[in-house]
Amino acid sequence: MAATASSYSITMRLNTAPDHGVVGTVATTIAEGGGIVTAIDVAESRHDKLVVDVTCSASDQTHSEELVRAVEALDGVAVHKVSDRTFLLHIGGKIKVESKVPLRTRDDLSLAYTPGVGRVSMAIHDNPEDVRRLTIKGNSVAVVTDGSAVLGLGNIGPGAALPVMEGKAALFKRFADIDAWPICLATQDTDEIVKAVEMIAPGFGGINLEDIAAPRCFEIERRLRESLDIPVFHDDQHGTAIVVLAALKNALRCVKKSLPDVRIVVSGAGAAGTAIVTLLLAAGAVDVVVVDREGALSADDATLSPSHQELAGATNPRRAAGSLQEVLVDADVFVGVSAPGILTPEWIADMADGAVVFALANPDPEVDPAAAAKYAAVVASGRSDYPNQINNVLAFPGVFRGLLDARAEDVSIDMLLRAADAIAAVVSDEELHASFIIPSVFHPDVAKRVASAISGKEA
Amino acid sequence: MAATASSYSITMRLNTAPDHGVVGTVATTIAEGGGIVTAIDVAESRHDKLVVDVTCSASDQTHSEELVRAVEALDGVAVHKVSDRTFLLHIGGKIKVESKVPLRTRDDLSLAYTPGVGRVSMAIHDNPEDVRRLTIKGNSVAVVTDGSAVLGLGNIGPGAALPVMEGKAALFKRFADIDAWPICLATQDTDEIVKAVEMIAPGFGGINLEDIAAPRCFEIERRLRESLDIPVFHDDQHGTAIVVLAALKNALRCVKKSLPDVRIVVSGAGAAGTAIVTLLLAAGAVDVVVVDREGALSADDATLSPSHQELAGATNPRRAAGSLQEVLVDADVFVGVSAPGILTPEWIADMADGAVVFALANPDPEVDPAAAAKYAAVVASGRSDYPNQINNVLAFPGVFRGLLDARAEDVSIDMLLRAADAIAAVVSDEELHASFIIPSVFHPDVAKRVASAISGKEA
Repeated sequence: MAATASSYSITMRLNTAPDHGVVGTVATTIAEGGGIVTAIDVAESRHDKLVVDVTCSASDQTHSEELVRAVEALDGVAVHKVSDRTFLLHIGGKIKVESKVPLRTRDDLSLAYTPGVGRVSMAIHDNPEDVRRLTIKGNSVAVVTDGSAVLGLGNIGPGAALPVMEGKAALFKRFADIDAWPICLATQDTDEIVKAVEMIAPGFGGINLEDIAAPRCFEIERRLRESLDIPVFHDDQHGTAIVVLAALKNALRCVKKSLPDVRIVVSGAGAAGTAIVTLLLAAGAVDVVVVDREGALSADDATLSPSHQELAGATNPRRAAGSLQEVLVDADVFVGVSAPGILTPEWIADMADGAVVFALANPDPEVDPAAAAKYAAVVASGRSDYPNQINNVLAFPGVFRGLLDARAEDVSIDMLLRAADAIAAVVSDEELHASFIIPSVFHPDVAKRVASAISGKEA
Repeated sequence: MAATASSYSITMRLNTAPDHGVVGTVATTIAEGGGIVTAIDVAESRHDKLVVDVTCSASDQTHSEELVRAVEALDGVAVHKVSDRTFLLHIGGKIKVESKVPLRTRDDLSLAYTPGVGRVSMAIHDNPEDVRRLTIKGNSVAVVTDGSAVLGLGNIGPGAALPVMEGKAALFKRFADIDAWPICLATQDTDEIVKAVEMIAPGFGGINLEDIAAPRCFEIERRLRESLDIPVFHDDQHGTAIVVLAALKNALRCVKKSLPDVRIVVSGAGAAGTAIVTLLLAAGAVDVVVVDREGALSADDATLSPSHQELAGATNPRRAAGSLQEVLVDADVFVGVSAPGILTPEWIADMADGAVVFALANPDPEVDPAAAAKYAAVVASGRSDYPNQINNVLAFPGVFRGLLDARAEDVSIDMLLRAADAIAAVVSDEELHASFIIPSVFHPDVAKRVASAISGKEA
């Protein structure tokens, strides 16, 4: 039976015979079917029937349908309606705008709108830097996507990407009190994306690029960083890189190795892989080999694309060649940001002692974390149902909080290094353990410490 | 003494001798200086001194500075700090984003973000029309400006326009529960504005164009209406036109005239003037003469710009010529959306009996409403300190509420006519009076009735 995930949680409204024993039978039936009952609410109790809402988790849609059929088959039970909690939660969207000022009276209107607002506009006109103090620009971030590389779903377009961007905006609020708004672009052309972001930039204090496919994401970010006076941060690249570096630092603390000395194999040469490599090198790593579907990238290979050539030129000092399995021999660290199941657990046995394996492909990792743990000293993944979840939520809220607090105009690689150090340092020496190399996303200090590391200001 | 306006309200923090009589002297001094004391709070009372916050309204900045100096000159009073309520209100901006979903636990995250959100994205990918049901697109409006014609302030640019756009977004929330977000564009080029709005459209359910200069606003709106599948509404044009038509219908009820029979002079051939004329003609007006700085527009005049030629061709059936003063003779209605002070009150005496004068230039009208009232039967203005305030807030929230409720893809002139009728009908026959032709912006029914008129749905 696959693991249950609460994102497949459903609520069945049942009409049953007026016999509370029936409710027990329902719960047993769901449990026997591999579901997990999380709530039973009797909505109505009458002499001739009960109305009961049963909420349960299933492993996926097919499983949830099986559970409904099993309950329907019971004597004295009719399934009146099935609600899907995830879809219910999304109706009407996940974020909203609120006024921070009262608008109850004419006096209120004259302060917040005309004529009072005119004086504020003229003050900004006279002193343009006041815009960050007197408007939302000081606390707002545009979450910009073209919908071309959304989660593990691929190129689903801007409309279908909107729920993800809303979720991101909600996380910005929850973890860093930032006002983020989704901007889903009706184009996947590099020039048009750059132009559109340049056009909308005056109202925002930062740009979070999100789920934009490689290699166009590199050029878009580079050009926007050149042209804009607000920070531009592609979270799929740098958010991931920060958290990976933080986790790797702590993993190496566990196995008593140091970054300049270890051999690192990175599987995946897309947006995340490239950013991870760049940050690892900046942090002092020396022996990094990048592997894609064709094997190890090497500066010798003239057939590589320009972005892969650049990556190859910066890495692989030993000119290692061959398949993933081959380059893994004697490696200390595997970082996967590639595809499900490409790492056979037994290969890890050929790695150096105290091997570190980060299998970060989403939603299904490069190797099953439990299987990897038989051979590796430290295992991390993107999954919340195993220890050591590498989750961007640890980085991006604090990063932007720090950038906004500092009224930063740029993002530097030093900031990213400091952010990684800040996250790693949340785990104390006493807490550090192969199954606890990275704090929980709900750890109350993370965003504050990252923000402070970025801005140089006290939290 | 000029009228005081609460947008020039200030709070002085005073250190005074420990004698409550001093506070009375301060209040008297402010009143004698023409200010209005609205609050006195003793913040601290000690044996050697009092700390008192005195809040008062002044007519403008110079006046507020005079009041501060007058208070400073008093014996036993030191002004410690002067705070400007309008600026205090604007610090940090006037709107914020909030999450509508809980994000307290891992379970919450898995529903609102990964992995749950992936199923919602795929549902939208499979059924694109679901985006309005499952995201904020169903309730969100972009308030788009290029900062080229902001209030009466002119071309102050996108950053300085942001406080106005935030105010608009706050009004959208307050009056119609719409989630509006400001988009201030770093361009004043027609093609670039059109392109930028097309790019960001997927995430919004409607586009409110705001404070974009004529004539480019006409082309921008026309092209966006052609290319987008969400409604596009330039509020400076159509919001104003709706409220003017509503007010004019009720003004004519007061003076017992009918729209097809009256002679109407419109002063101003910009965005608002053009839209007002178009809507008046659609509503049945026949004899409309548009006047600009050069005098009456006439189809005979080959020197007019293309947009003025179009306007002239649709109006002035009697081929009236001459200055504003000349064409006002025997006119029934004056509608000014032009410039302060261009209408001499005495000219109104030459208008027909039961003259209607709408002097809507902001912040200073074409004629002082009190002076106009000596000659006209009905006077309206954009000012809140006279009866009959013509305020777009009566229209745009309900218009967009109706458009979103109907999932409209376009705005039709029939919708605008119905919106005007809905606003006019809020004033009952019993209430109707020369000093009450238009409801207050705080009337609780207005937005609902406008929305219902637009959407065709019950409020």
